[in-house]
Amino acid sequence: MNQRKYSVFIDNVASCNDRYCGAYGRSYTMEEKFDRVKSIPLLSAVDIVLSPDFMNDKERIRENVQRTGLKVAAVAVDTFADPVFQKGSFASTDSGIRELAMQRAREAIDFAKSVGCSIFTTWPGQDGYDYLFQADYIKERTLFQEAMAELCDYSPDMSITMEYKIKEPRTHSYISTVGMALLMCEAVGRDNLGIALDYGHAALGYETPAESAAICKMYGDRLKHIHINDNYRLWDDDMIVGSVHTLEFVEFIYWLRRTGYQGYMTLDQFPYREDGRDAVAESAEWLDYLESLVDNADMDEIAEVIKKNDAIAASRLMRKLLQGRIA
Amino acid sequence: MNQRKYSVFIDNVASCNDRYCGAYGRSYTMEEKFDRVKSIPLLSAVDIVLSPDFMNDKERIRENVQRTGLKVAAVAVDTFADPVFQKGSFASTDSGIRELAMQRAREAIDFAKSVGCSIFTTWPGQDGYDYLFQADYIKERTLFQEAMAELCDYSPDMSITMEYKIKEPRTHSYISTVGMALLMCEAVGRDNLGIALDYGHAALGYETPAESAAICKMYGDRLKHIHINDNYRLWDDDMIVGSVHTLEFVEFIYWLRRTGYQGYMTLDQFPYREDGRDAVAESAEWLDYLESLVDNADMDEIAEVIKKNDAIAASRLMRKLLQGRIA
Amino acid sequence: MNQRKYSVFIDNVASCNDRYCGAYGRSYTMEEKFDRVKSIPLLSAVDIVLSPDFMNDKERIRENVQRTGLKVAAVAVDTFADPVFQKGSFASTDSGIRELAMQRAREAIDFAKSVGCSIFTTWPGQDGYDYLFQADYIKERTLFQEAMAELCDYSPDMSITMEYKIKEPRTHSYISTVGMALLMCEAVGRDNLGIALDYGHAALGYETPAESAAICKMYGDRLKHIHINDNYRLWDDDMIVGSVHTLEFVEFIYWLRRTGYQGYMTLDQFPYREDGRDAVAESAEWLDYLESLVDNADMDEIAEVIKKNDAIAASRLMRKLLQGRIA
Amino acid sequence: MNQRKYSVFIDNVASCNDRYCGAYGRSYTMEEKFDRVKSIPLLSAVDIVLSPDFMNDKERIRENVQRTGLKVAAVAVDTFADPVFQKGSFASTDSGIRELAMQRAREAIDFAKSVGCSIFTTWPGQDGYDYLFQADYIKERTLFQEAMAELCDYSPDMSITMEYKIKEPRTHSYISTVGMALLMCEAVGRDNLGIALDYGHAALGYETPAESAAICKMYGDRLKHIHINDNYRLWDDDMIVGSVHTLEFVEFIYWLRRTGYQGYMTLDQFPYREDGRDAVAESAEWLDYLESLVDNADMDEIAEVIKKNDAIAASRLMRKLLQGRIA
Repeated sequence: MNQRKYSVFIDNVASCNDRYCGAYGRSYTMEEKFDRVKSIPLLSAVDIVLSPDFMNDKERIRENVQRTGLKVAAVAVDTFADPVFQKGSFASTDSGIRELAMQRAREAIDFAKSVGCSIFTTWPGQDGYDYLFQADYIKERTLFQEAMAELCDYSPDMSITMEYKIKEPRTHSYISTVGMALLMCEAVGRDNLGIALDYGHAALGYETPAESAAICKMYGDRLKHIHINDNYRLWDDDMIVGSVHTLEFVEFIYWLRRTGYQGYMTLDQFPYREDGRDAVAESAEWLDYLESLVDNADMDEIAEVIKKNDAIAASRLMRKLLQGRIA
Repeated sequence: MNQRKYSVFIDNVASCNDRYCGAYGRSYTMEEKFDRVKSIPLLSAVDIVLSPDFMNDKERIRENVQRTGLKVAAVAVDTFADPVFQKGSFASTDSGIRELAMQRAREAIDFAKSVGCSIFTTWPGQDGYDYLFQADYIKERTLFQEAMAELCDYSPDMSITMEYKIKEPRTHSYISTVGMALLMCEAVGRDNLGIALDYGHAALGYETPAESAAICKMYGDRLKHIHINDNYRLWDDDMIVGSVHTLEFVEFIYWLRRTGYQGYMTLDQFPYREDGRDAVAESAEWLDYLESLVDNADMDEIAEVIKKNDAIAASRLMRKLLQGRIA
Repeated sequence: MNQRKYSVFIDNVASCNDRYCGAYGRSYTMEEKFDRVKSIPLLSAVDIVLSPDFMNDKERIRENVQRTGLKVAAVAVDTFADPVFQKGSFASTDSGIRELAMQRAREAIDFAKSVGCSIFTTWPGQDGYDYLFQADYIKERTLFQEAMAELCDYSPDMSITMEYKIKEPRTHSYISTVGMALLMCEAVGRDNLGIALDYGHAALGYETPAESAAICKMYGDRLKHIHINDNYRLWDDDMIVGSVHTLEFVEFIYWLRRTGYQGYMTLDQFPYREDGRDAVAESAEWLDYLESLVDNADMDEIAEVIKKNDAIAASRLMRKLLQGRIA
Repeated sequence: MNQRKYSVFIDNVASCNDRYCGAYGRSYTMEEKFDRVKSIPLLSAVDIVLSPDFMNDKERIRENVQRTGLKVAAVAVDTFADPVFQKGSFASTDSGIRELAMQRAREAIDFAKSVGCSIFTTWPGQDGYDYLFQADYIKERTLFQEAMAELCDYSPDMSITMEYKIKEPRTHSYISTVGMALLMCEAVGRDNLGIALDYGHAALGYETPAESAAICKMYGDRLKHIHINDNYRLWDDDMIVGSVHTLEFVEFIYWLRRTGYQGYMTLDQFPYREDGRDAVAESAEWLDYLESLVDNADMDEIAEVIKKNDAIAASRLMRKLLQGRIA
């Protein structure tokens, strides 16, 4: 059996809101949130978004990490929830805003080091545009590129990752697809720049997540972190893993193993109407189950089927994988 | 020139938030909001969502209506932002919740009457489901149907309208498309049940808004209210009118006139990064411009082209409409 | 175990083409096609589209039906492949074209009777429009409505069904969604008018197929026939059943049983690059497997979960259904 | 006024078919097709797909080119309509098939040279997959990459272009998005490899075509050819230019000028139900009109608005552009 390395964004076990409803559930203290993660046996780590609140509470985060024994899988800088970045962060044409994003990023990198974490994540959700004739596509993208280079050089031992997403909160994001993210890696030309692949974002962009992972391997071994959740393909619904799709997760897990991915899978959900902790626990159970289908499979047989380019053979294989009848 | 009857959801001139960022802009008092609407010459009315806040402020709303001379185009009950309705309102299987929704609806209807407004709107955004195996599709839809009948009977002189939308905030809504909304009208069997057509919701559901309006006319003359905004067709982006699409609005306006629609068009936007008042003013300017294209057109010539079922003739007509060369 | 009633469009076991490639595979004689269907043990029937070719070969079809012992599950009139109907059939404003469609439909109904089949299917794929300003939405829809009434009256013992689809071959179809199809049923007002639900079309229209089936039950018990296949939700890919989605099929099968559907499930695929017979056999194997998951489940337990409106309980149930651990 | 350089795929002025209907219109001789193109004053060139039929008719093509005085804007190899390539061409794991694709490509390049054309186009529509577990994503992509390098080296003076598209005819294409196409350019590392940007493909992939053009400029000045048409964003509808979108074309034209694009815009449509020649003429008229809106605009004013990152300013600009009120 493959080892499970599951993490969760710590706020996922709390409550969330949408653009209509400001609070679907109650709020939780940091201690409660860590305890709630700890209560899920399949999880061994947390991901931290260093939002303004959290930045003022670094010591408390470290204490809770120590207290619970949870690892920190990755640390993200918040350039999406703080309204100061509403028109862009690393790609902002306002040099003050851009510098603030850089400063926050460096602070998050430093914090990551302080908790023994080697993955730093940016999700440039505000770097993009909403309307036509609203952005200088070349200048802003160039600024973003320079920012990534600077961050890579700031901490060469840290994996600096970009999480791509085709839209939301802007109607169009600059780092939109796996191709665009890898192109940015090529342009920046630093070895420690990588990809944080959000499964739901890949699905939203009509990518096959397994293929996206394989392409990251192919072009520079750039896959450094994974966020995981499920959706109906047309929006980033951030649902419980496996609640919509089944076989695509199995193929994803297979290609992760085939390409030697060693990192965490971090649960990243918006359980608006559910208890956050229970929704996360459900996803972990699903992941474990879906991984077990690959555990039970014959990797060589899968490789043989793939070579055939044959839909009938692939279909039979998928049915067998589900039924656990292989090997 | 056709008379313009434009309204706006009063909170549209204030600030908004999304699921990541709790406040893109500052908050405004009710007086400020009314003043901001009043400052836009093309607007003559407001739409009010009777949220819990507003419910405790009815007198103040009435005073502001009187003070500004703005009409109230429609009053909506809030069954989507109050978290008590997070798992449903009129379709809730929890009879207490359902009764609370009914009570709030009756209160909103009464308030509408008190400000001389004859359009009551429900947007059953929480009536639906997120996951498979999560809902009794028949029972909940039946409950919804009964609720609409009760509301129609409560106030036979009021237009009780349903605003359809295919998804969000639930991943699936019960009153999803124009067909489903009209089917509900047929099933309820009350003359005062109608449709509030949100242009963006129609576009999101891959409807042609002009066709949706025409179908409402055909099946019981059910179109009683219109919300208007623009989007990229894959999400309810709630953008400035005319900023993405152009010709579809022109066709929509044409069919509204052809079918004798006499109501308001209510601006319904989420200008996250813009000044709300200015974004609304922009939409009003766009609407006025798009209407002027129809003002300048020869209605008989349009009708003749439509009869031909000929893409080439339609294409020529559209170019002429844009260029204002007709007549 | 529930009885399997699977049929297939007879041309599905042959070859197909797309808009680029005129022939992906070789052609087959009618005898070969019947033999290929017969060779798949899980199939007991065929569906026939009475295309111009087939119309001239009715006797041969009947002979093959008799020879193979296959039933005829449904007969469809071809109003989509014959270019004479390229701008519409039942909704055509050209009375000659419309009459031709009616004549072909009556001929198909008569043929259905002659082979002991009680389901007649229309797929009005050409009844719609491509461009704005290209159609009189009310007039054409009215013509369509009258045509359905006439067909229902022509043969009151026959189920006259409409297969809805949101688009293709037109960019917009009139009978677009389950709501629109049921609204048409209400408007026509005949008991023998019903729905042929194509699973892939429902998915393409962002419907949950189980819900669509339930709604058909609720509004007049209108579900009379089912076409089945899989897709990626954004196009009618017509793929092998179960190759993309898994749980949605399980929920669909559950609701079919709960609502007492007794008809056939007809495989309806476009296996461009596969051997048609083998692709159909695969789908039948998948369906049988997916049905077995429901066979093994406790129907009362499912009903209890559904009542809860609880995503966590639903998620657990789905995992259990997949694992066959229920009962 | 900017010079118009419009071409058309020569078969666009003939008839087309879809997967249901084998022939919507009549067929045309090569002479007729050239004459039909020639009859449209705004067109000065043709694009040729060197399908098997055309390969046997090279001399006749050359004669018609000479006779009509039309230029050849680009020559494409057919690796999508010939069923031999149904499971892949340049990425095929079958070395015989791959070599056949290379041979046909070299032949098309040679032909291009013989008619004074410097743009060679590949549209690898069959290089991709339909099902999960059906493809070795890394190996096939590597083969494709090697093929492009070989073609670039075969003819260093020729622009070897790749036309990206997210899907169809396969459910997933390898060269899917502008990011993926540019990443391929980086990986291949040849100066004469470039992009053929199909406007509708960009729109289908939720790209803003103007941004896609700008990105091509930014990363190696790779934009070498353009195909143009319109669609509803969810499928490659291949409609008349400007019949759905308006402002996006204006922004596209603006950015083409800003980035110094000097090539042709080639009309690429599927006018199923229209006279092909008339549909092409309509598109040319639309393009000319949309270009005239940019002709009349103040380029500096547009650049100033873009710098502002301001939706309100962008919206005002767009309305002014449409109204021709600038300058």
